[in-house]
Amino acid sequence: MRITALSGGVGGARFLRGLVKHLDSRDSDEPHELTVIGNTGDDITLFGLRVCPDLDSVLYTLGGGVNESQGWGREDESFAVQAELKALAVEPQWFGLGDRDMGTHIARSLWLGQGQTLTDVTAKLARRWALPEQGVTLLPATNTPIETHVVIADPDSDDPTAERAVHFQEWWVRMQAKTEAKRFTVAGMGQAIPAPGVLEAIRNADLVILPPSNPVVSIGIILGIPGVRDALRGTRAPVVGVSPIIGGAPVRGHADACLRPLGVPVSAAGVAGLYVDFLNGWLVDDVDSDIAIPSGPHRITHRSQPLLMSDTDAASVIAGGAVELGLDLMQARTAP
Amino acid sequence: MRITALSGGVGGARFLRGLVKHLDSRDSDEPHELTVIGNTGDDITLFGLRVCPDLDSVLYTLGGGVNESQGWGREDESFAVQAELKALAVEPQWFGLGDRDMGTHIARSLWLGQGQTLTDVTAKLARRWALPEQGVTLLPATNTPIETHVVIADPDSDDPTAERAVHFQEWWVRMQAKTEAKRFTVAGMGQAIPAPGVLEAIRNADLVILPPSNPVVSIGIILGIPGVRDALRGTRAPVVGVSPIIGGAPVRGHADACLRPLGVPVSAAGVAGLYVDFLNGWLVDDVDSDIAIPSGPHRITHRSQPLLMSDTDAASVIAGGAVELGLDLMQARTAP
Repeated sequence: MRITALSGGVGGARFLRGLVKHLDSRDSDEPHELTVIGNTGDDITLFGLRVCPDLDSVLYTLGGGVNESQGWGREDESFAVQAELKALAVEPQWFGLGDRDMGTHIARSLWLGQGQTLTDVTAKLARRWALPEQGVTLLPATNTPIETHVVIADPDSDDPTAERAVHFQEWWVRMQAKTEAKRFTVAGMGQAIPAPGVLEAIRNADLVILPPSNPVVSIGIILGIPGVRDALRGTRAPVVGVSPIIGGAPVRGHADACLRPLGVPVSAAGVAGLYVDFLNGWLVDDVDSDIAIPSGPHRITHRSQPLLMSDTDAASVIAGGAVELGLDLMQARTAP
Repeated sequence: MRITALSGGVGGARFLRGLVKHLDSRDSDEPHELTVIGNTGDDITLFGLRVCPDLDSVLYTLGGGVNESQGWGREDESFAVQAELKALAVEPQWFGLGDRDMGTHIARSLWLGQGQTLTDVTAKLARRWALPEQGVTLLPATNTPIETHVVIADPDSDDPTAERAVHFQEWWVRMQAKTEAKRFTVAGMGQAIPAPGVLEAIRNADLVILPPSNPVVSIGIILGIPGVRDALRGTRAPVVGVSPIIGGAPVRGHADACLRPLGVPVSAAGVAGLYVDFLNGWLVDDVDSDIAIPSGPHRITHRSQPLLMSDTDAASVIAGGAVELGLDLMQARTAP
């Protein structure tokens, strides 16, 4: 079975680890192929080094090297480099990069500087984290440098209408998404093209899954890359999503702060509405079992089960629910 | 008193630390100004980061952050970044950079990438290591990227006359200078110009000192930058050197392996011969007190004292000897 997933960082990575566990546990002769299309809108150049937070969370989580408690960065981390940068008054200090993590960014920056694409670089990093052995291919959504910016009220202006755009990471990490976002813009999106393999992975999949990643700044960014949304609309595979909202609040992260500027209700139904043009199945938490799925061009089947990813086993059960929903949708299509 | 010193890495740095200690101990109302012109021929780009081994040895040693036993790199170092680079199969692995040290190289590379000159960058690093508080200004010899290459017999060729050039650091660190050097070449030297302040520091000094640095690949590289040698010939200040050779062998490092390709005897006299056109005073070890100083355009005064820099106190005594020799030469010039 060829599965393609669009993913952000922490939540997506944990879901994918559960998905791999579920797929490994299935009684099947056919090996699975899981292609993950990772968000690159969060990418940022810090200290001259290219950092790809979402791709790295997927790599470290699937590779067993992630800091479990925070869901990003490396376990058993030290911070000698960052301490030295602080001694040198190098900004920003609000983004704490550990030493092992820094090794990833140094290597990535080196390789990109040599002219390798982010696709090439990500494949190298994926080998270091044994993704191929797990049947997983990780693709950046695009090799075009794009950066999600958040437009906020200018804190330094007396003019209440004055605005300022800050990098997504500054808003997310430094401001902890507490400063109201007026809107999101993605620098470079106009020139972005999907990375090699991205559209093919969507078109040729047996099943497309949207993990419970942030629908605006993770999945939403990938969907904004010209061609991706059309590929999702056109694929023969059922597209099954897992709600990142449980009972009106995000499972983790600040999805609510991202949905509000779009005028989208912070609800499982609200998020489904963002995907209504291509979504076939929608997995919600039991507390949301009675949601009214927004109407769209085609029927969206929804099911409910507990969606709290408390550990890898829980994530595996959730992923299993998404896969089952997808298989049932496939079955229904081929039924006489 | 304005003193200008030309310096390489470890040996030069230890001498300079002794010189600062000596100058601080002098009973003088006039504060000293010590300008250090540091060799940049050893500089190398590793992992995409710009590393300046000689400048860093001076910074770390004067700043109290050096790994005392090796004379370069930082004390209390960890190697998490390098371990991650190894896991990613990033070469070279023969140049071990610690995590704190890596912070220096990341900051330097960032600032250079922003368009700052190596002079600017070095001044920032010098502030972090409190060099101004010690009356010390550290100047890179040139802001032009230059790289010392070592021509060796090509180990992969059947042709005994075939040659290969390797970066100085590869020869020095990986090969430990055991592979015979046929000659040294300096990539970029043809376009090199002295960094701002370098020629002025030589011209306007009261005393110029050559620490016991490598005469070929440290001092020799600085002397090769167009204009530097002429400034030394033309300065009114006496130029006093400290021999890096004691009784026919280098105090440390591989000066012998560097002198041989030049056909220069590995002796205190041999090294003095390299400086004969501008040297006024030459401090040698007691075992070399009877050397025959090569003849040149002017008289070279030599003195002897123990030159083994076993610790900072010993270095201070040696530096004091060089300063006294310089003062005596000044005195002799102004004597009626």
